[in-house]
Amino acid sequence: MNDSLFVLDSKPVSYVIGEGALAFSEKNLAQYKQAVILVDENVEKHCLPVFREKLPLFNYKGVISIQSGEQKKNLEQTVHIWNELTRMQVDRDSLLVVLGGGVVSDIGGFAAATFKRGIKSINFPTTLLGMVDAAIGGKTGIDFSNFKNQVGLFANPCSVIVDPVFLSTLEDKHWQSGFAEVLKYGLIMDRELWRMLKGKHYREIDEWSKIIIKAARDKIDIVRHDAHEKGIRKNLNFGHTLGHAIESYFLKSGKPVTHGQAIAAGMICEAWISSKVYEFECIQLEEIIEMIDLNFDRFNLDESVIPDLLDLMRQDKKVREGKLRFSLLRKLGKAVHDIEVDMKLVREGLQFYIAREKCS
Amino acid sequence: MNDSLFVLDSKPVSYVIGEGALAFSEKNLAQYKQAVILVDENVEKHCLPVFREKLPLFNYKGVISIQSGEQKKNLEQTVHIWNELTRMQVDRDSLLVVLGGGVVSDIGGFAAATFKRGIKSINFPTTLLGMVDAAIGGKTGIDFSNFKNQVGLFANPCSVIVDPVFLSTLEDKHWQSGFAEVLKYGLIMDRELWRMLKGKHYREIDEWSKIIIKAARDKIDIVRHDAHEKGIRKNLNFGHTLGHAIESYFLKSGKPVTHGQAIAAGMICEAWISSKVYEFECIQLEEIIEMIDLNFDRFNLDESVIPDLLDLMRQDKKVREGKLRFSLLRKLGKAVHDIEVDMKLVREGLQFYIAREKCS
Repeated sequence: MNDSLFVLDSKPVSYVIGEGALAFSEKNLAQYKQAVILVDENVEKHCLPVFREKLPLFNYKGVISIQSGEQKKNLEQTVHIWNELTRMQVDRDSLLVVLGGGVVSDIGGFAAATFKRGIKSINFPTTLLGMVDAAIGGKTGIDFSNFKNQVGLFANPCSVIVDPVFLSTLEDKHWQSGFAEVLKYGLIMDRELWRMLKGKHYREIDEWSKIIIKAARDKIDIVRHDAHEKGIRKNLNFGHTLGHAIESYFLKSGKPVTHGQAIAAGMICEAWISSKVYEFECIQLEEIIEMIDLNFDRFNLDESVIPDLLDLMRQDKKVREGKLRFSLLRKLGKAVHDIEVDMKLVREGLQFYIAREKCS
Repeated sequence: MNDSLFVLDSKPVSYVIGEGALAFSEKNLAQYKQAVILVDENVEKHCLPVFREKLPLFNYKGVISIQSGEQKKNLEQTVHIWNELTRMQVDRDSLLVVLGGGVVSDIGGFAAATFKRGIKSINFPTTLLGMVDAAIGGKTGIDFSNFKNQVGLFANPCSVIVDPVFLSTLEDKHWQSGFAEVLKYGLIMDRELWRMLKGKHYREIDEWSKIIIKAARDKIDIVRHDAHEKGIRKNLNFGHTLGHAIESYFLKSGKPVTHGQAIAAGMICEAWISSKVYEFECIQLEEIIEMIDLNFDRFNLDESVIPDLLDLMRQDKKVREGKLRFSLLRKLGKAVHDIEVDMKLVREGLQFYIAREKCS
């Protein structure tokens, strides 16, 4: 093992992260007598050839291809996967190789966990978001009735194999979605990571392998301590309570936005709320907001959408007994969870974002 | 506690079984701030009034009603439940009260386990099948693409409350479905239960409370030892490999049959196969078959359906690496699992059933 490859052979999930991870996983794959690969149409075109080239001996029964995009993380696509698994006579000892970004691992993990009461799966994330977030931690699910991840469950793959080789195929919007999560780890738990990133636009970064290992390990540490999000895992929701509401809002109005842009907006609002609750200095809030604004364009929102966003938040899975609870920053590099926030402050956070105010 | 009420306060599932179980569960229910009741149209009419009468203080937010019948254990009904849970703004701390027979607990358990990555549920079985089998052991799921339980997962309710008070509302075909499973416990693990039943038609039995406690405890013992069906739980599949194929066959041809009748047929075929594999005496096989024939009419099957049935068995979840494995009787009262059986013998078992032969 070296600096650029991290291996953690643990239960229930083993991890291989870094350069050469694909080749390293060859013997792991060889133990399954039957395997099927799940991809979306983009992954099929750009990543499946790389996967095949790096694992020439891997023998599989077939490829299931779904449509790409968050709008396709739905029941219809899940039904397609179940139908294909049925048609290929996949049995309980078979493996589903989940090759793709966050949408593919969310829906693939859900389909695998619910087919014949659960078949095994291995995640091979192909996007930055998948590598540092979605493929790790066993959250699976689909959007339903205009709510994100309304249907799904906690179900772990046996392994997560993260090889940065796929990043060369990545579109700009996918870089953004992953980068928002990378920034989040810096903000909630990893000042060293934040320092590595600070002042840079993501296109200027050249040491991605190191950054991915660092961010993925942050996520692994958290989910190993709290798989079912009873405590510390909630810290990962920083930026997501408002971010998901924004994402749902645009999905509902037929103009879907990228996850990254929505979370970036959520982080600005929630950093502002944090600064009010924990009274941190303007200079710290400005440091956070500058870095986010450097990497993400703001949405042109109107104050009239605020009531809709508040309504969507009330449907969030994180709502307990009707109360809105946030994960906030105690300071830069340290998050806290389950903080009840007054609706008035939430509204003001949104107004702060919309008006592009400075800290005062 | 007395002879007619069994209480097991265990993790992850607690059980209350017998007369007065409903009233006993009152304080358990009181701890949930929000609850929704799931029923089917028959249960709503016949059992919900009883439930309300016995638990006058139980406060719930709403009732979700699905269509009744095995043919309705499908994705469409699951979507209906997810939609209703969404509409009622059910959150992760809410409880789903699953009041009904096997279909309601299979589909309700699945819907609860997959809504917002899992909400809590309590099973209140209202049919004999639910009381001794379906409500216990965490198997949830729906039929899909003409295969039984093709989609689903292992997910336990927090509690199972079995009160025989609901049996007075039961139709004949539902008695049959439960009784096939009761007989099965006798055959695979409980000679004392078999002796209590032997020679009786189920309509003659008057000590149901005792029999239900005995049968339910047999099931609980097994699932506590082997929740995920890696070993001994497979014994419960006696009669079901062929039985499910028969059930699927009729479902597919648009003439659904009761679970009990299908399992009764499966048990006759598989008892015959057992008698060949383990060479037991004709008198024992005859004892088994007489008891089943006393309680269940045989199907008028034609030999031409055998290839279809064999095909359906190949899609069974219990198939591993393409080989058909059965749970068979070593003798009356003792099952064994994972027994590979030659296709020829399976075919002959079906022929034995169809020709209504005697043991020879």
